[in-house]
Amino acid sequence: MIGTVAVNGEVRRMEDLRLQDFLQSFFFGAGFFETLLVEEGAPMFLERHLARLRSSLEAHAGCVHSPPPEVLTAGAVREALRRCLEADANLGPRFTGVAKLVAGDERLLLSFRPLPQRPTGEGVVLDTVEDRCYRRGDPTLNHKSVSYLRQYAHLGRGTVFVNEAGELCEVPNGNLFFLVGDTVVTPPLEAPCLPGIIRSVLLEKGRLGGMPVEERAMRREEVEGVRGCILTNSVSLALAVSRLLGRELPGSHALAENARAVVREYAQQET
Amino acid sequence: MIGTVAVNGEVRRMEDLRLQDFLQSFFFGAGFFETLLVEEGAPMFLERHLARLRSSLEAHAGCVHSPPPEVLTAGAVREALRRCLEADANLGPRFTGVAKLVAGDERLLLSFRPLPQRPTGEGVVLDTVEDRCYRRGDPTLNHKSVSYLRQYAHLGRGTVFVNEAGELCEVPNGNLFFLVGDTVVTPPLEAPCLPGIIRSVLLEKGRLGGMPVEERAMRREEVEGVRGCILTNSVSLALAVSRLLGRELPGSHALAENARAVVREYAQQET
Repeated sequence: MIGTVAVNGEVRRMEDLRLQDFLQSFFFGAGFFETLLVEEGAPMFLERHLARLRSSLEAHAGCVHSPPPEVLTAGAVREALRRCLEADANLGPRFTGVAKLVAGDERLLLSFRPLPQRPTGEGVVLDTVEDRCYRRGDPTLNHKSVSYLRQYAHLGRGTVFVNEAGELCEVPNGNLFFLVGDTVVTPPLEAPCLPGIIRSVLLEKGRLGGMPVEERAMRREEVEGVRGCILTNSVSLALAVSRLLGRELPGSHALAENARAVVREYAQQET
Repeated sequence: MIGTVAVNGEVRRMEDLRLQDFLQSFFFGAGFFETLLVEEGAPMFLERHLARLRSSLEAHAGCVHSPPPEVLTAGAVREALRRCLEADANLGPRFTGVAKLVAGDERLLLSFRPLPQRPTGEGVVLDTVEDRCYRRGDPTLNHKSVSYLRQYAHLGRGTVFVNEAGELCEVPNGNLFFLVGDTVVTPPLEAPCLPGIIRSVLLEKGRLGGMPVEERAMRREEVEGVRGCILTNSVSLALAVSRLLGRELPGSHALAENARAVVREYAQQET
């Protein structure tokens, strides 16, 4: 992580922040976060990220202490980001990397890290099923909270979370889209899964590679008929899943390329 | 909370701790905690708490950064606690209150707070069912992690967590024991529920008020036949549940008294 951060808009050094000011998040996981792609100094889909963050804070008004509303606006975050980039030679006004917002304890913490290194061209392999811990309709998993251990423990392990009805839900670091027949299917929020920002963009577009995009439950047995699969998140946008539960999916690469094009189209409109 | 704490055995002031040293717990909820009753300077069931903490750390060795093993011994924690009590006039060597251990980020943080105020004699009312988010067999909920938002959001709301099979699991702040027929029943860990320290003591004893104590699934319909119910946790030990899902339970008070007597008997043997 990079040492320059902002707290409620004020530029600070990470090493100067006190644990004491973030105790509810630390002790009880009572905070929410957003991970944004920053390209050449511009945060992608900032308004959408802030809308999701505010929505989680509102849904937990009784127990998570929200930052002041004026720091949760796109204007305020853009300004905080600009000041951080200016203040740190490791960032700079044309910084490309990852920004993270954490909201809780009446504070909004903005921090930065480099882009993850990922071998280009290779696909993601998802061969492990975790089918003991997702519950259909669990509202907890519709919020990106810092109570993140369940996901964190499975990062990098090629895990797909499956609910008690045998439906595929999501992966620790993103949403899934499946090409089945002539439709692109993504699990509904009730699966449960996170209301991912890239997911929302692809659903709004409604078409991918000439095929309709549909939100519906995706049963495990249906994997046999899947012709392609992508993993979406706000940093990688869309990654091809080259193997899903043992099934090779050469069709995933074209699907990922199509998805990235849609995301780019929307991102351009929204800046 | 009281300002004097210990980090890996070293006495510190809470306001001097840096967020930077606890980032994995803060960002990802990747840490575990224990809440202990301290009476006259002595922590109750310390060995049991540390065994549970070590067990959770071992189960997450790949992702949660454990403190050095030498600070996770009863001797080391007793010594750290003694030094904190001596160092702070608000504590003092005969402190009675709550101690909290948080393990993660290669650190063990020991902190203190006063005993919660609770009106004596009154029972706990549990009238709310949350039946959308517990999944039978979920191993995540067998660990007391700082990814605690699910529980935290329901504190003080009289909530009982129920799984998809309609079985009562636990409450946000403790385990449940039910007097059904001539047996005292507590849900199994697979319900799921936390492996509570007081729960483990009562199961070891195996009898409560002359009746056998049994670990088995407790279906929601069975509440109609329940004659008493207690809530157990390490701070309150055993609380009478005076009303459970609309059913008045005068038998709970005697059951809670019996449970506290058992806990006292074990606590004395183990110090």
